[in-house]
Amino acid sequence: MKDETTSDLVQKDVPAAVIKRLPRYHRYLGELIKSGKERISSAELSHMMGVTASQIRQDLNCFGGFGQQGYGYPVRYVYDKISDLLGTSEGYRAVIVGAGNLGRALASTHMFERRGVTILGLFDNKPWVVGTVIHGLSVYASDGLTDFCKNNKVDIGVLTVPKEAAADVTKQLIAGGVRGIWNFANMELSVTEPTVTVENIHLGDSLMNLCYQMKVNGKLPE
Amino acid sequence: MKDETTSDLVQKDVPAAVIKRLPRYHRYLGELIKSGKERISSAELSHMMGVTASQIRQDLNCFGGFGQQGYGYPVRYVYDKISDLLGTSEGYRAVIVGAGNLGRALASTHMFERRGVTILGLFDNKPWVVGTVIHGLSVYASDGLTDFCKNNKVDIGVLTVPKEAAADVTKQLIAGGVRGIWNFANMELSVTEPTVTVENIHLGDSLMNLCYQMKVNGKLPE
Repeated sequence: MKDETTSDLVQKDVPAAVIKRLPRYHRYLGELIKSGKERISSAELSHMMGVTASQIRQDLNCFGGFGQQGYGYPVRYVYDKISDLLGTSEGYRAVIVGAGNLGRALASTHMFERRGVTILGLFDNKPWVVGTVIHGLSVYASDGLTDFCKNNKVDIGVLTVPKEAAADVTKQLIAGGVRGIWNFANMELSVTEPTVTVENIHLGDSLMNLCYQMKVNGKLPE
Repeated sequence: MKDETTSDLVQKDVPAAVIKRLPRYHRYLGELIKSGKERISSAELSHMMGVTASQIRQDLNCFGGFGQQGYGYPVRYVYDKISDLLGTSEGYRAVIVGAGNLGRALASTHMFERRGVTILGLFDNKPWVVGTVIHGLSVYASDGLTDFCKNNKVDIGVLTVPKEAAADVTKQLIAGGVRGIWNFANMELSVTEPTVTVENIHLGDSLMNLCYQMKVNGKLPE
Protein backbone atom coordinates (compact mmCIF):
# COMPACT_ATOMS: atom_id res chain seq x y z
CA MET A 1 0.00 0.00 0.00
CA LYS A 2 1.53 3.28 -0.96
CA ASP A 3 1.35 6.63 0.81
CA GLU A 4 -1.88 8.13 -0.55
CA THR A 5 -1.21 11.62 0.79
CA THR A 6 2.15 12.01 -0.89
CA SER A 7 0.77 10.56 -4.09
CA ASP A 8 -2.18 12.96 -4.10
CA LEU A 9 0.10 15.90 -3.44
CA VAL A 10 2.41 14.95 -6.27
CA GLN A 11 -0.50 14.47 -8.63
CA LYS A 12 -1.88 17.92 -7.97
CA ASP A 13 1.49 19.49 -8.68
CA VAL A 14 2.11 17.90 -12.07
CA PRO A 15 0.41 19.69 -14.98
CA ALA A 16 -1.63 17.61 -17.43
CA ALA A 17 0.75 18.45 -20.28
CA VAL A 18 3.64 16.91 -18.32
CA ILE A 19 1.56 13.83 -17.45
CA LYS A 20 1.03 13.23 -21.16
CA ARG A 21 4.79 13.26 -21.73
CA LEU A 22 5.67 10.99 -18.82
CA PRO A 23 5.05 7.61 -20.49
CA ARG A 24 7.78 8.48 -22.98
CA TYR A 25 10.25 9.32 -20.19
CA HIS A 26 9.25 6.08 -18.50
CA ARG A 27 10.08 4.15 -21.66
CA TYR A 28 13.52 5.71 -22.06
CA LEU A 29 14.39 5.38 -18.38
CA GLY A 30 13.35 1.71 -18.52
CA GLU A 31 15.82 1.17 -21.37
CA LEU A 32 18.55 2.92 -19.36
CA ILE A 33 17.90 0.67 -16.36
CA LYS A 34 18.19 -2.38 -18.62
CA SER A 35 21.52 -1.11 -19.92
CA GLY A 36 22.80 -0.66 -16.36
CA LYS A 37 22.93 3.15 -16.38
CA GLU A 38 22.45 4.59 -12.87
CA ARG A 39 22.52 8.35 -13.42
CA ILE A 40 21.80 10.49 -16.46
CA SER A 41 22.17 14.20 -17.10
CA SER A 42 19.46 16.29 -18.71
CA ALA A 43 21.89 16.87 -21.61
CA GLU A 44 22.30 13.13 -22.28
CA LEU A 45 18.57 12.49 -21.96
CA SER A 46 17.95 15.47 -24.25
CA HIS A 47 20.17 13.93 -26.92
CA MET A 48 18.47 10.51 -26.62
CA MET A 49 14.93 11.80 -26.64
CA GLY A 50 15.19 14.72 -29.01
CA VAL A 51 13.73 17.12 -26.44
CA THR A 52 15.53 20.22 -25.14
CA ALA A 53 17.44 19.82 -21.88
CA SER A 54 15.49 22.69 -20.34
CA GLN A 55 12.20 20.95 -21.19
CA ILE A 56 13.50 17.82 -19.44
CA ARG A 57 14.55 19.77 -16.34
CA GLN A 58 11.19 21.51 -16.26
CA ASP A 59 9.26 18.24 -16.67
CA LEU A 60 11.23 16.17 -14.17
CA ASN A 61 11.54 18.89 -11.56
CA CYS A 62 7.75 18.82 -11.31
CA PHE A 63 7.99 15.95 -8.94
CA GLY A 64 10.98 16.38 -6.74
CA GLY A 65 14.09 18.47 -6.41
CA PHE A 66 16.41 15.70 -7.60
CA GLY A 67 18.74 16.18 -10.51
CA GLN A 68 21.49 17.90 -8.52
CA GLN A 69 23.61 20.11 -10.73
CA GLY A 70 26.47 18.06 -12.14
CA TYR A 71 25.23 14.71 -10.79
CA GLY A 72 22.38 13.98 -13.15
CA TYR A 73 19.12 12.22 -12.37
CA PRO A 74 19.06 8.92 -10.46
CA VAL A 75 17.55 6.74 -13.21
CA ARG A 76 15.80 4.12 -11.07
CA TYR A 77 14.40 6.68 -8.63
CA VAL A 78 12.86 8.85 -11.36
CA TYR A 79 11.54 5.73 -13.11
CA ASP A 80 9.85 4.56 -9.91
CA LYS A 81 8.41 8.03 -9.24
CA ILE A 82 6.87 8.11 -12.70
CA SER A 83 5.58 4.53 -12.29
CA ASP A 84 3.88 5.50 -9.04
CA LEU A 85 2.40 8.65 -10.44
CA LEU A 86 1.03 6.98 -13.56
CA GLY A 87 -0.61 4.16 -11.67
CA THR A 88 1.66 1.28 -12.66
CA SER A 89 2.06 0.47 -8.97
CA GLU A 90 -1.67 0.01 -8.49
CA GLY A 91 -1.49 -3.69 -9.35
CA TYR A 92 -4.27 -3.55 -11.93
CA ARG A 93 -5.64 -6.84 -13.25
CA ALA A 94 -6.82 -7.23 -16.83
CA VAL A 95 -8.53 -9.60 -19.26
CA ILE A 96 -8.26 -9.55 -23.05
CA VAL A 97 -11.61 -10.03 -24.78
CA GLY A 98 -11.14 -11.46 -28.27
CA ALA A 99 -8.50 -14.13 -28.87
CA GLY A 100 -7.91 -13.37 -32.56
CA ASN A 101 -4.58 -12.23 -33.99
CA LEU A 102 -4.62 -8.90 -32.20
CA GLY A 103 -5.60 -10.40 -28.83
CA ARG A 104 -2.85 -13.00 -29.22
CA ALA A 105 -0.33 -10.34 -30.22
CA LEU A 106 -1.14 -8.31 -27.10
CA ALA A 107 -1.06 -11.40 -24.86
CA SER A 108 2.41 -12.28 -26.09
CA THR A 109 4.06 -8.94 -25.29
CA HIS A 110 5.69 -7.84 -22.05
CA MET A 111 3.84 -4.55 -22.32
CA PHE A 112 1.42 -5.28 -19.51
CA GLU A 113 3.78 -6.69 -16.91
CA ARG A 114 6.23 -3.82 -17.53
CA ARG A 115 3.47 -1.43 -16.52
CA GLY A 116 2.40 -3.43 -13.49
CA VAL A 117 -0.72 -4.87 -15.14
CA THR A 118 -1.40 -8.61 -14.79
CA ILE A 119 -3.32 -10.37 -17.56
CA LEU A 120 -5.55 -13.05 -16.04
CA GLY A 121 -6.78 -14.62 -19.27
CA LEU A 122 -8.45 -14.20 -22.65
CA PHE A 123 -12.11 -14.55 -23.62
CA ASP A 124 -13.58 -15.64 -26.93
CA ASN A 125 -16.86 -17.00 -28.25
CA LYS A 126 -15.44 -19.45 -30.79
CA PRO A 127 -15.73 -23.00 -29.40
CA TRP A 128 -12.50 -24.11 -31.10
CA VAL A 129 -10.53 -21.35 -29.38
CA VAL A 130 -12.04 -21.71 -25.91
CA GLY A 131 -9.92 -24.00 -23.74
CA THR A 132 -6.69 -23.32 -25.63
CA VAL A 133 -3.72 -21.67 -23.95
CA ILE A 134 -1.95 -18.62 -25.42
CA HIS A 135 1.43 -17.71 -23.97
CA GLY A 136 0.49 -19.39 -20.72
CA LEU A 137 -2.92 -17.71 -20.55
CA SER A 138 -6.19 -19.65 -20.77
CA VAL A 139 -8.91 -18.72 -23.25
CA TYR A 140 -12.32 -18.78 -21.54
CA ALA A 141 -15.83 -18.74 -23.02
CA SER A 142 -17.31 -15.26 -23.40
CA ASP A 143 -20.49 -16.08 -21.53
CA GLY A 144 -18.54 -16.33 -18.29
CA LEU A 145 -16.99 -12.88 -18.67
CA THR A 146 -19.03 -10.90 -16.14
CA ASP A 147 -18.74 -13.54 -13.42
CA PHE A 148 -15.02 -13.96 -14.00
CA CYS A 149 -14.49 -10.21 -13.67
CA LYS A 150 -16.50 -10.11 -10.44
CA ASN A 151 -14.81 -13.13 -8.90
CA ASN A 152 -11.29 -12.07 -9.86
CA LYS A 153 -11.59 -8.34 -9.24
CA VAL A 154 -10.66 -7.45 -12.82
CA ASP A 155 -9.87 -3.74 -13.28
CA ILE A 156 -9.20 -3.49 -17.02
CA GLY A 157 -10.87 -5.02 -20.07
CA VAL A 158 -8.85 -5.02 -23.29
CA LEU A 159 -11.30 -5.02 -26.20
CA THR A 160 -10.10 -6.70 -29.40
CA VAL A 161 -13.50 -7.95 -30.55
CA PRO A 162 -15.15 -6.88 -33.84
CA LYS A 163 -16.80 -3.46 -33.79
CA GLU A 164 -20.29 -5.02 -33.74
CA ALA A 165 -19.64 -6.84 -30.47
CA ALA A 166 -17.87 -4.00 -28.66
CA ALA A 167 -20.87 -2.33 -27.01
CA ASP A 168 -22.23 -5.61 -25.68
CA VAL A 169 -18.88 -6.78 -24.30
CA THR A 170 -18.38 -3.39 -22.66
CA LYS A 171 -21.70 -3.78 -20.82
CA GLN A 172 -20.63 -7.20 -19.56
CA LEU A 173 -17.26 -5.85 -18.41
CA ILE A 174 -18.84 -2.94 -16.54
CA ALA A 175 -21.41 -5.29 -14.98
CA GLY A 176 -18.42 -7.28 -13.73
CA GLY A 177 -16.96 -4.23 -12.01
CA VAL A 178 -14.31 -3.31 -14.60
CA ARG A 179 -13.24 0.34 -14.36
CA GLY A 180 -11.01 0.72 -17.40
CA ILE A 181 -11.57 -0.23 -21.04
CA TRP A 182 -8.70 -0.31 -23.50
CA ASN A 183 -10.56 -0.25 -26.77
CA PHE A 184 -9.04 -1.62 -29.99
CA ALA A 185 -12.45 -2.21 -31.60
CA ASN A 186 -12.05 0.82 -33.88
CA MET A 187 -15.21 2.60 -32.78
CA GLU A 188 -15.70 5.22 -30.14
CA LEU A 189 -17.34 3.63 -27.09
CA SER A 190 -19.87 5.75 -25.30
CA VAL A 191 -19.72 4.83 -21.65
CA THR A 192 -21.94 6.86 -19.35
CA GLU A 193 -20.55 5.64 -16.02
CA PRO A 194 -18.25 8.42 -14.75
CA THR A 195 -16.14 5.91 -12.81
CA VAL A 196 -15.25 3.99 -15.98
CA THR A 197 -12.29 5.19 -18.05
CA VAL A 198 -12.07 4.43 -21.77
CA GLU A 199 -8.88 4.71 -23.79
CA ASN A 200 -9.46 4.29 -27.52
CA ILE A 201 -6.80 3.10 -29.93
CA HIS A 202 -7.41 4.26 -33.48
CA LEU A 203 -4.67 2.78 -35.61
CA GLY A 204 -6.35 4.05 -38.76
CA ASP A 205 -5.98 7.66 -37.60
CA SER A 206 -2.27 7.08 -37.16
CA LEU A 207 -2.04 5.58 -40.66
CA MET A 208 -3.76 8.68 -42.06
CA ASN A 209 -1.30 10.93 -40.25
CA LEU A 210 1.54 8.97 -41.83
CA CYS A 211 0.03 9.31 -45.32
CA TYR A 212 -0.51 13.03 -44.81
CA GLN A 213 3.05 13.64 -43.63
CA MET A 214 4.38 11.59 -46.56
CA LYS A 215 2.35 13.70 -48.94
CA VAL A 216 3.66 16.92 -47.40
CA ASN A 217 7.25 15.62 -47.31
CA GLY A 218 6.97 14.47 -50.93
CA LYS A 219 6.46 18.07 -51.95
CA LEU A 220 9.55 19.37 -50.19
CA PRO A 221 12.37 20.42 -52.51
CA GLU A 222 14.88 17.56 -52.70
CA MET B 1 -3.89 12.53 -61.31
CA LYS B 2 -5.42 15.16 -59.12
CA ASP B 3 -5.24 18.90 -59.42
CA GLU B 4 -2.01 19.70 -57.60
CA THR B 5 -2.62 23.43 -57.49
CA THR B 6 -5.95 23.15 -55.74
CA SER B 7 -4.59 20.55 -53.36
CA ASP B 8 -1.57 22.70 -52.48
CA LEU B 9 -3.77 25.71 -51.92
CA VAL B 10 -6.11 23.77 -49.67
CA GLN B 11 -3.22 22.36 -47.70
CA LYS B 12 -1.75 25.76 -46.98
CA ASP B 13 -5.10 26.99 -45.68
CA VAL B 14 -5.74 24.22 -43.16
CA PRO B 15 -4.01 24.73 -39.79
CA ALA B 16 -2.02 21.83 -38.32
CA ALA B 17 -4.42 21.53 -35.37
CA VAL B 18 -7.31 20.91 -37.77
CA ILE B 19 -5.26 18.38 -39.76
CA LYS B 20 -4.78 16.38 -36.56
CA ARG B 21 -8.54 16.26 -36.03
CA LEU B 22 -9.42 15.30 -39.61
CA PRO B 23 -8.86 11.52 -39.36
CA ARG B 24 -11.60 11.41 -36.74
CA TYR B 25 -14.04 13.30 -38.97
CA HIS B 26 -13.07 10.95 -41.79
CA ARG B 27 -13.94 7.97 -39.62
CA TYR B 28 -17.36 9.30 -38.63
CA LEU B 29 -18.22 10.43 -42.16
CA GLY B 30 -17.23 6.97 -43.43
CA GLU B 31 -19.73 5.42 -41.00
CA LEU B 32 -22.42 7.84 -42.18
CA ILE B 33 -21.79 6.90 -45.84
CA LYS B 34 -22.14 3.23 -44.93
CA SER B 35 -25.45 3.94 -43.22
CA GLY B 36 -26.70 5.75 -46.35
CA LYS B 37 -26.80 9.26 -44.86
CA GLU B 38 -26.28 11.92 -47.55
CA ARG B 39 -26.29 15.17 -45.60
CA ILE B 40 -25.55 15.96 -41.97
CA SER B 41 -25.88 19.14 -39.93
CA SER B 42 -23.15 20.41 -37.65
CA ALA B 43 -25.59 19.86 -34.75
CA GLU B 44 -26.04 16.15 -35.56
CA LEU B 45 -22.33 15.64 -36.09
CA SER B 46 -21.66 17.49 -32.84
CA HIS B 47 -23.95 15.08 -30.98
CA MET B 48 -22.28 12.01 -32.55
CA MET B 49 -18.71 13.14 -32.04
CA GLY B 50 -18.93 14.94 -28.71
CA VAL B 51 -17.43 18.12 -30.17
CA THR B 52 -19.21 21.51 -30.18
CA ALA B 53 -21.10 22.42 -33.35
CA SER B 54 -19.11 25.63 -33.64
CA GLN B 55 -15.84 23.66 -33.56
CA ILE B 56 -17.16 21.47 -36.38
CA ARG B 57 -18.19 24.47 -38.48
CA GLN B 58 -14.81 26.07 -37.89
CA ASP B 59 -12.91 22.86 -38.80
CA LEU B 60 -14.90 21.93 -41.90
CA ASN B 61 -15.19 25.46 -43.26
CA CYS B 62 -11.40 25.44 -43.53
CA PHE B 63 -11.66 23.69 -46.83
CA GLY B 64 -14.61 24.99 -48.69
CA GLY B 65 -17.69 27.09 -48.23
CA PHE B 66 -20.04 24.10 -48.15
CA GLY B 67 -22.39 23.50 -45.23
CA GLN B 68 -25.11 25.85 -46.40
CA GLN B 69 -27.20 27.05 -43.51
CA GLY B 70 -30.09 24.68 -43.05
CA TYR B 71 -28.90 22.08 -45.55
CA GLY B 72 -26.06 20.46 -43.65
CA TYR B 73 -22.82 19.11 -45.08
CA PRO B 74 -22.81 16.78 -48.09
CA VAL B 75 -21.34 13.69 -46.41
CA ARG B 76 -19.62 12.07 -49.40
CA TYR B 77 -18.19 15.36 -50.64
CA VAL B 78 -16.62 16.30 -47.30
CA TYR B 79 -15.35 12.71 -46.89
CA ASP B 80 -13.65 12.85 -50.30
CA LYS B 81 -12.17 16.28 -49.59
CA ILE B 82 -10.65 15.01 -46.35
CA SER B 83 -9.40 11.85 -48.11
CA ASP B 84 -7.67 13.97 -50.75
CA LEU B 85 -6.16 16.32 -48.24
CA LEU B 86 -4.83 13.55 -46.00
CA GLY B 87 -3.22 11.67 -48.85
CA THR B 88 -5.54 8.65 -49.04
CA SER B 89 -5.93 9.32 -52.76
CA GLU B 90 -2.20 9.04 -53.39
CA GLY B 91 -2.45 5.29 -54.02
CA TYR B 92 0.33 4.38 -51.58
CA ARG B 93 1.64 0.80 -51.66
CA ALA B 94 2.81 -0.95 -48.49
CA VAL B 95 4.47 -4.08 -47.17
CA ILE B 96 4.20 -5.51 -43.66
CA VAL B 97 7.52 -6.66 -42.26
CA GLY B 98 7.01 -9.30 -39.58
CA ALA B 99 4.35 -11.97 -40.06
CA GLY B 100 3.76 -12.67 -36.37
CA ASN B 101 0.44 -12.14 -34.61
CA LEU B 102 0.53 -8.37 -34.97
CA GLY B 103 1.51 -8.48 -38.65
CA ARG B 104 -1.28 -10.98 -39.28
CA ALA B 105 -3.76 -8.88 -37.33
CA LEU B 106 -2.92 -5.81 -39.41
CA ALA B 107 -3.04 -7.78 -42.67
CA SER B 108 -6.52 -9.03 -41.87
CA THR B 109 -8.13 -5.61 -41.31
CA HIS B 110 -9.73 -3.32 -43.88
CA MET B 111 -7.82 -0.43 -42.36
CA PHE B 112 -5.40 -0.03 -45.26
CA GLU B 113 -7.77 -0.31 -48.20
CA ARG B 114 -10.17 2.11 -46.51
CA ARG B 115 -7.39 4.68 -46.53
CA GLY B 116 -6.34 3.99 -50.09
CA VAL B 117 -3.25 1.99 -49.13
CA THR B 118 -2.63 -1.34 -50.90
CA ILE B 119 -0.74 -4.07 -49.04
CA LEU B 120 1.45 -5.99 -51.47
CA GLY B 121 2.67 -8.68 -49.11
CA LEU B 122 4.31 -9.64 -45.82
CA PHE B 123 7.97 -10.39 -45.08
CA ASP B 124 9.40 -12.69 -42.45
CA ASN B 125 12.67 -14.47 -41.77
CA LYS B 126 11.20 -17.72 -40.39
CA PRO B 127 11.43 -20.44 -43.04
CA TRP B 128 8.20 -22.10 -41.91
CA VAL B 129 6.25 -18.86 -42.39
CA VAL B 130 7.77 -17.84 -45.74
CA GLY B 131 5.62 -19.08 -48.61
CA THR B 132 2.39 -19.16 -46.63
CA VAL B 133 -0.56 -16.95 -47.51
CA ILE B 134 -2.26 -14.69 -44.98
CA HIS B 135 -5.62 -13.24 -45.97
CA GLY B 136 -4.70 -13.54 -49.61
CA LEU B 137 -1.26 -11.98 -49.12
CA SER B 138 1.98 -13.91 -49.68
CA VAL B 139 4.69 -14.04 -47.04
CA TYR B 140 8.12 -13.48 -48.63
CA ALA B 141 11.63 -14.06 -47.27
CA SER B 142 13.15 -11.02 -45.58
CA ASP B 143 16.34 -11.11 -47.63
CA GLY B 144 14.38 -10.06 -50.70
CA LEU B 145 12.89 -7.00 -49.02
CA THR B 146 14.97 -4.23 -50.60
CA ASP B 147 14.64 -5.60 -54.13
CA PHE B 148 10.92 -6.17 -53.73
CA CYS B 149 10.44 -2.58 -52.59
CA LYS B 150 12.44 -1.26 -55.55
CA ASN B 151 10.72 -3.44 -58.12
CA ASN B 152 7.22 -2.77 -56.81
CA LYS B 153 7.57 0.90 -55.94
CA VAL B 154 6.64 0.36 -52.31
CA ASP B 155 5.91 3.61 -50.44
CA ILE B 156 5.24 2.39 -46.90
CA GLY B 157 6.87 -0.21 -44.66
CA VAL B 158 4.85 -1.43 -41.69
CA LEU B 159 7.28 -2.58 -39.00
CA THR B 160 6.04 -5.35 -36.70
CA VAL B 161 9.43 -6.99 -36.13
CA PRO B 162 11.08 -7.31 -32.71
CA LYS B 163 12.78 -4.17 -31.43
CA GLU B 164 16.25 -5.61 -32.07
CA ALA B 165 15.59 -6.04 -35.79
CA ALA B 166 13.88 -2.68 -36.36
CA ALA B 167 16.90 -0.54 -37.25
CA ASP B 168 18.22 -3.07 -39.75
CA VAL B 169 14.86 -3.59 -41.46
CA THR B 170 14.40 0.18 -41.67
CA LYS B 171 17.72 0.50 -43.52
CA GLN B 172 16.60 -2.16 -46.01
CA LEU B 173 13.27 -0.43 -46.53
CA ILE B 174 14.89 2.96 -47.14
CA ALA B 175 17.43 1.36 -49.50
CA GLY B 176 14.41 0.04 -51.39
CA GLY B 177 13.00 3.56 -51.79
CA VAL B 178 10.34 3.42 -49.06
CA ARG B 179 9.32 6.91 -47.89
CA GLY B 180 7.11 6.11 -44.91
CA ILE B 181 7.64 3.83 -41.92
CA TRP B 182 4.76 2.84 -39.68
CA ASN B 183 6.62 1.61 -36.65
CA PHE B 184 5.07 -0.89 -34.20
CA ALA B 185 8.46 -2.10 -32.94
CA ASN B 186 8.09 -0.18 -29.68
CA MET B 187 11.25 1.85 -30.00
CA GLU B 188 11.82 5.28 -31.44
CA LEU B 189 13.44 4.97 -34.86
CA SER B 190 16.00 7.58 -35.71
CA VAL B 191 15.86 8.15 -39.43
CA THR B 192 18.10 10.89 -40.76
CA GLU B 193 16.71 11.06 -44.31
CA PRO B 194 14.45 14.15 -44.40
CA THR B 195 12.33 12.61 -47.15
CA VAL B 196 11.39 9.62 -44.97
CA THR B 197 8.44 9.97 -42.60
CA VAL B 198 8.20 7.84 -39.45
CA GLU B 199 5.00 7.36 -37.48
CA ASN B 200 5.58 5.51 -34.21
CA ILE B 201 2.91 3.52 -32.44
CA HIS B 202 3.52 3.22 -28.72
CA LEU B 203 0.75 1.07 -27.31
CA GLY B 204 2.45 1.00 -23.92
CA ASP B 205 2.12 4.78 -23.60
CA SER B 206 -1.60 4.46 -24.21
CA LEU B 207 -1.84 1.73 -21.55
CA MET B 208 -0.09 4.03 -19.09
CA ASN B 209 -2.51 6.84 -19.87
CA LEU B 210 -5.37 4.46 -19.16
CA CYS B 211 -3.87 3.41 -15.81
CA TYR B 212 -3.29 7.04 -14.85
CA GLN B 213 -6.84 8.09 -15.70
CA MET B 214 -8.20 5.09 -13.78
CA LYS B 215 -6.14 6.10 -10.77
CA VAL B 216 -7.42 9.69 -10.95
CA ASN B 217 -11.03 8.57 -11.53
CA GLY B 218 -10.78 6.12 -8.64
CA LYS B 219 -10.22 9.06 -6.31
CA LEU B 220 -13.31 10.98 -7.42
CA PRO B 221 -16.12 11.10 -4.89
CA GLU B 222 -18.75 8.48 -5.87
